[in-house]
Amino acid sequence: MIWINGAETDCLPATDRGLLYGDGVWETIGVRQGRAQLLEWHLERLQTGLQALRIPQPDWHGFQQEILTFCQGQERSVLKVIVTRGAGQRGYNPVTGLPPTRILQLSPWPEYPPDYAGQGVRLALCQARLARQPLLAGFKHLNRLEQVLARAEFGNDYQEGLMCDYAGNVVEGVMSNLFIINAAGEFCTPDLGQCGVAGIMRRFIIHVLEKYGIRCHICTLELKDIEQAQALFMTNSLIGIWPVREFSGKHYGIPSLIRKLQMDVKALS
Amino acid sequence: MIWINGAETDCLPATDRGLLYGDGVWETIGVRQGRAQLLEWHLERLQTGLQALRIPQPDWHGFQQEILTFCQGQERSVLKVIVTRGAGQRGYNPVTGLPPTRILQLSPWPEYPPDYAGQGVRLALCQARLARQPLLAGFKHLNRLEQVLARAEFGNDYQEGLMCDYAGNVVEGVMSNLFIINAAGEFCTPDLGQCGVAGIMRRFIIHVLEKYGIRCHICTLELKDIEQAQALFMTNSLIGIWPVREFSGKHYGIPSLIRKLQMDVKALS
Repeated sequence: MIWINGAETDCLPATDRGLLYGDGVWETIGVRQGRAQLLEWHLERLQTGLQALRIPQPDWHGFQQEILTFCQGQERSVLKVIVTRGAGQRGYNPVTGLPPTRILQLSPWPEYPPDYAGQGVRLALCQARLARQPLLAGFKHLNRLEQVLARAEFGNDYQEGLMCDYAGNVVEGVMSNLFIINAAGEFCTPDLGQCGVAGIMRRFIIHVLEKYGIRCHICTLELKDIEQAQALFMTNSLIGIWPVREFSGKHYGIPSLIRKLQMDVKALS
Repeated sequence: MIWINGAETDCLPATDRGLLYGDGVWETIGVRQGRAQLLEWHLERLQTGLQALRIPQPDWHGFQQEILTFCQGQERSVLKVIVTRGAGQRGYNPVTGLPPTRILQLSPWPEYPPDYAGQGVRLALCQARLARQPLLAGFKHLNRLEQVLARAEFGNDYQEGLMCDYAGNVVEGVMSNLFIINAAGEFCTPDLGQCGVAGIMRRFIIHVLEKYGIRCHICTLELKDIEQAQALFMTNSLIGIWPVREFSGKHYGIPSLIRKLQMDVKALS
């Protein structure tokens, strides 16, 4: 099911700047029992992205209502929300006054084998690196060729790939964020000031850890920090938490605190 | 007028990866008397881009015929050609076997004041910098948020903006390539191995200079090289050659060789 600007249609004008330049932002949201999970945080990130791109904000109250109506009766689905700068005249110049395009899409829930969350996943090291571009870092825009290239590198032997930037820092998974428990037992997740997407599930994990009185360090991580870590896990809104059981020939355990966090994610639904 | 996969329609499926990830390439081509200018070079660049993104190639012979038919009877227009990886399932993974989407659009020719080519333009210095990403450099893909942000920086007082990368090198204009005639009288244009789009008009200029026995140096340029240059000009398929009359408070002349190149561009039509 697809709605564009509130109407059921699969038809986007080919002059939409979302297509022409990737001039927009998006969210992937889990839907359970008709409820879009962590919707407020997702809408906050959309707003941050639109501000960064100076795209006019939609009427948020009306948009939220539209999303609630759209998700009604959905047992378990994936909601994709896209907001673009709209269909416009030729050229990069973002003419003001264009009404933004709102796109809502529902897809079936991806049925990942329970092993991924249970026993952990194998993590590939992607050769494709992320460019450092602070102007586009943190929010979730439609310029995602780096992720497409990185994802194409590994097949079914791996469930996710780890991406570094050109400075040699570890940044994130192709479709997820990375957390580590380092040699000293501290939680760390990469700083995303230069590149990467600040995931909503990442925010949730940091928030839950805080509630437990555990500080999650947001810092610069290199591959050697990953090698020396006690445990790794990947997060996003659909997979929740996937512990990493193997990366680069090294095997990792799954401490009980990761299990506890997985329960917290489960309790969201 | 818009054709998608050979049929007249303005309707792109909202699941097309061109929208979702900017997963495709494009060309802007001048059309005069029904003829798409430098079409073979444009198709070559499309091909290079599709190869870089590992998107299956369309049937080139059929596609070229389609473009010729599409442009028939067009006195003076702008042709936009887009090829995306197609409409696919959710997720970054570029599933093989998807038929690519071909989009052709015609727009009115932009009537720039003749002064721009005649007297030269004012060039702004953009604050937005280009990220260094060799995986996406040189070809013309649909991830163009850097250009959108850069173009939004300057208004009608300037006709084009100059972009640097994070290493401090001068790379290109927002919608054009840069050439300089340096203090020693040599032609130079920035190397695009790290970022930037290798324009078809840039290729044409280098080619024409070669015919004149003039070597154009493809090199690293910094802002001080621009300041010390005798002359600057910007090129793309629609503007042809715009000499720069002012950049950063400095005024530049227009040597006769630039006029000669402008005549060569004019002779294309």
